[in-house]
Amino acid sequence: MTSPESREQDDELFFAEEEKASDKPSDIKEPWKVLIVDDEEEVHRVTRMVLQGFRFDGRGLEFHDAYSAGEARNYLENEEDLALVLLDVVMESDDAGLQLVRYIRDTLNNNFLRIVLRTGQPGQAPEDRVIVEYDINDYKAKTELTATKLMTTVISALRSYRDIMIIEHNKRGLRKVIDASPTIFRIQSLHNFTSGVLEQLSSLLSLGRNTMFCEGFTAAHRKGDLRITAATGDYEVLIDKRVSEVAPRDVRNLLLEALAKKANIIRDSHYVGYLPGRSGQDYVIYVHGWQDLKSWDRDLVNLFFTNVSVAHDNIMLNIEIEETQSEVIYTLGEIAEARSQETGNHVRRVAKYSELTAKLFGLSPFESKILRLASPMHDVGKLAIPDRILNKPGRLTPEEWEIMKTHAGLGQEMLQHSTRPLMRAAAIVAGQHHEKWDGSGYPLGLKGEQIHIYGRITACADVFDALSVRRVYKEAWPIKRVMTYFKEQSGSHFDPRLVTLMEDNLSQFMEIRKQYTEPWERGEL
Amino acid sequence: MTSPESREQDDELFFAEEEKASDKPSDIKEPWKVLIVDDEEEVHRVTRMVLQGFRFDGRGLEFHDAYSAGEARNYLENEEDLALVLLDVVMESDDAGLQLVRYIRDTLNNNFLRIVLRTGQPGQAPEDRVIVEYDINDYKAKTELTATKLMTTVISALRSYRDIMIIEHNKRGLRKVIDASPTIFRIQSLHNFTSGVLEQLSSLLSLGRNTMFCEGFTAAHRKGDLRITAATGDYEVLIDKRVSEVAPRDVRNLLLEALAKKANIIRDSHYVGYLPGRSGQDYVIYVHGWQDLKSWDRDLVNLFFTNVSVAHDNIMLNIEIEETQSEVIYTLGEIAEARSQETGNHVRRVAKYSELTAKLFGLSPFESKILRLASPMHDVGKLAIPDRILNKPGRLTPEEWEIMKTHAGLGQEMLQHSTRPLMRAAAIVAGQHHEKWDGSGYPLGLKGEQIHIYGRITACADVFDALSVRRVYKEAWPIKRVMTYFKEQSGSHFDPRLVTLMEDNLSQFMEIRKQYTEPWERGEL
Repeated sequence: MTSPESREQDDELFFAEEEKASDKPSDIKEPWKVLIVDDEEEVHRVTRMVLQGFRFDGRGLEFHDAYSAGEARNYLENEEDLALVLLDVVMESDDAGLQLVRYIRDTLNNNFLRIVLRTGQPGQAPEDRVIVEYDINDYKAKTELTATKLMTTVISALRSYRDIMIIEHNKRGLRKVIDASPTIFRIQSLHNFTSGVLEQLSSLLSLGRNTMFCEGFTAAHRKGDLRITAATGDYEVLIDKRVSEVAPRDVRNLLLEALAKKANIIRDSHYVGYLPGRSGQDYVIYVHGWQDLKSWDRDLVNLFFTNVSVAHDNIMLNIEIEETQSEVIYTLGEIAEARSQETGNHVRRVAKYSELTAKLFGLSPFESKILRLASPMHDVGKLAIPDRILNKPGRLTPEEWEIMKTHAGLGQEMLQHSTRPLMRAAAIVAGQHHEKWDGSGYPLGLKGEQIHIYGRITACADVFDALSVRRVYKEAWPIKRVMTYFKEQSGSHFDPRLVTLMEDNLSQFMEIRKQYTEPWERGEL
Repeated sequence: MTSPESREQDDELFFAEEEKASDKPSDIKEPWKVLIVDDEEEVHRVTRMVLQGFRFDGRGLEFHDAYSAGEARNYLENEEDLALVLLDVVMESDDAGLQLVRYIRDTLNNNFLRIVLRTGQPGQAPEDRVIVEYDINDYKAKTELTATKLMTTVISALRSYRDIMIIEHNKRGLRKVIDASPTIFRIQSLHNFTSGVLEQLSSLLSLGRNTMFCEGFTAAHRKGDLRITAATGDYEVLIDKRVSEVAPRDVRNLLLEALAKKANIIRDSHYVGYLPGRSGQDYVIYVHGWQDLKSWDRDLVNLFFTNVSVAHDNIMLNIEIEETQSEVIYTLGEIAEARSQETGNHVRRVAKYSELTAKLFGLSPFESKILRLASPMHDVGKLAIPDRILNKPGRLTPEEWEIMKTHAGLGQEMLQHSTRPLMRAAAIVAGQHHEKWDGSGYPLGLKGEQIHIYGRITACADVFDALSVRRVYKEAWPIKRVMTYFKEQSGSHFDPRLVTLMEDNLSQFMEIRKQYTEPWERGEL
């Protein structure tokens, strides 16, 4: 194992470091592409001969030949990483070479390619005029081009090209980091965030290379263990699992090291990003999938992870607020239910059943979520019903029943003072959850689609839960009996489409049922 | 007025556009800085003479002279935007010039500066060796440097320098956009966000220029009008004001145009950024403070505003959730109060008084906010008290009073099932808001600092509001009488430090009182 190395975020993407990295010759480095444009075969031959065995920055040359400006155009249209053109002036016309310069700079908008003009007839293209008027990088009369001078010219040109491309490459990387911002920063689920980060990272590291694919996961301390919180690719099956059980020892050690040092770690093909949390809950993101990361890339990755860290923090904040909101709502719902001796997880299950039904029905994710938060408040009106009626042991008198039924309207009244979408939905649910499809419900006797879809869904969810869970006054019904009842009541009490959806997706409802068992049910289900 | 021009976000920061912009000669453009390093005075003289009147890209030359490598070093240490060095080889030593090359590239890490070697003794520094081993950009024997060749050499070098600097400038701009990300994206108040955006924008537009300062504001449709929602600098006094009343007609028209076109607008020295909202509520950000924005800068500003738009959206989402959460909590609190016939804005005022007291006491902004959200739930326990006791018209019997007092413990019980900081705080407040400083309170008879600061603060806030507002059974006390009561009870019922804080900052409490008047009070206060 290599020695530990922890890299703090660098302040600058060091040009100098890249410089040093490129100084090392390496056989796998691609050659510099050079285009010789000249109508004399001899010039091509001599150029190749003189520059045989030439190397600059550890890279050789790869020659391409064009015998006219027209041929050169065709070549240039399909070639992006050409470094240098050695360009004759007089070919198919007296200024064919000069026109090609304009074409490269103005039409192709290629300002990277270095252009060296080599002319045999300086009279046709006087140096002092041409160097000013055309965006070329050197001017040589063929007569002055000794072997040494050609070498010097080519090295100078390639050196400039290299300097430009290093900054350009660097710039493109920065641009990628910026382009990733909307993906990274948009508040979203932790899972989508993790996928987005890894996708953008793959794109970032693929710059000028073959496409690569990163996969990875985030982890945090939960329930006393370091656990995987979100993941992509092969790691997806590991969500919620303990790192100690599923990750190799060296990976786990890297994660712990990053958490302990509160720093990013890059080692071999592993990257561990440290994401400080808001309330002392720190996260790490583990990414795997690259080899041989250059120092410049490392800086870019660290820069990218600064963004990732801020974005992650935002998402965690968002999750914290949303979960707290849910708990406040559940508490409100539970207090209302507790007065009428409903117990346990009733409101949580109603919330989940309602959301599931809403999704199956085709409501938007936003509306489904709103309904999940609104439905637990359906019975708040009961808080205004006198105890003597709400908790009367025997049967209610007709007068008492009329008072009892006012809880729907009272609930709506309590909740409708706000214009927030959630509170409007809650008011609807409270007011309409006892309406029936055939118009026989209360308080208004609304019929069919006069009843808001939120009301129809919550009615199903509420009754489904009431029947399928044991209460003080009744045993739990077996699920078959519950569904028989729903089918009987389809079109009278319940919206028939919703009953069908419940039948067709019963296993998903049972999944929720199982997730929120009551303490007295342990082992029963 | 110029003709309308709306710019959509461009996909690319066009190198070509910048190129064209620089092609226009302009008198205000700074000259290219050239350093002549040579120990022969004559070389300096001739160089200046030959290059007299030289212009490239509309910019002249500014010569600086050094007569040794040592002198050149001193100059280079303090000079950043030097474009070209014309460098002699043999000066204080045979390779003084070559050593200077290494110093520039390796010690100063300056890879932008173009270096042209001019030697009178090629034997000391053979071209084929030097061009390979030293990172120079051209090699000339002084003998071959005719006036034309010197011109060509200088133009070639400056052209490369220009190409490099355009990308480098572009890169620095992108880097600035990235560096601004943590400031822009961190979820924060709308006001801080707006200031942050304007600060970063100033920094972005100051690149390579004198510092500049942008000021501006955000606006959105509220209460039927386009209003200013957050602002910096001179605009700060305009927050909440109607745009139609405070902004000049042309600025207002720009804002409306941006909202109608759903696009950013740059015109003269005005920039209007369009920020699409989540729920159809769109925002505009208006910035003022620059002149003569180049096309490249415009692209960078638009790029920056893509980030701003996403960040703004996040903040609006966050505000929406937090405000919804507050309303759910107020609703819960109000339902509890309504059962015991408390009315109106009691819980909202208690929330605000508690937050204010917490801040004055020195609690963190986080804790102060938590207390604002928790304190409205102080009486939820009353939901479990039988109506016959809660709403008994006459005096309670001792037994009834004992039952009444259980509401503190019951409230704590209802709220303590969650581990969320907000719910823990709410449980504390519910359980302890009837404890008294001298130990004579209930349910536990806690004393002094045994009572959690949340409980002590909410006790003050609750009583302060109860006394200062009219109830069914009593008139409102004048504020003087309220404060006399608090001073009497300081050290017995209330924490003396809190009483002092209330006395010393009474105007701030009265401000809240005024903000949440009751319907029956209009005109009374």
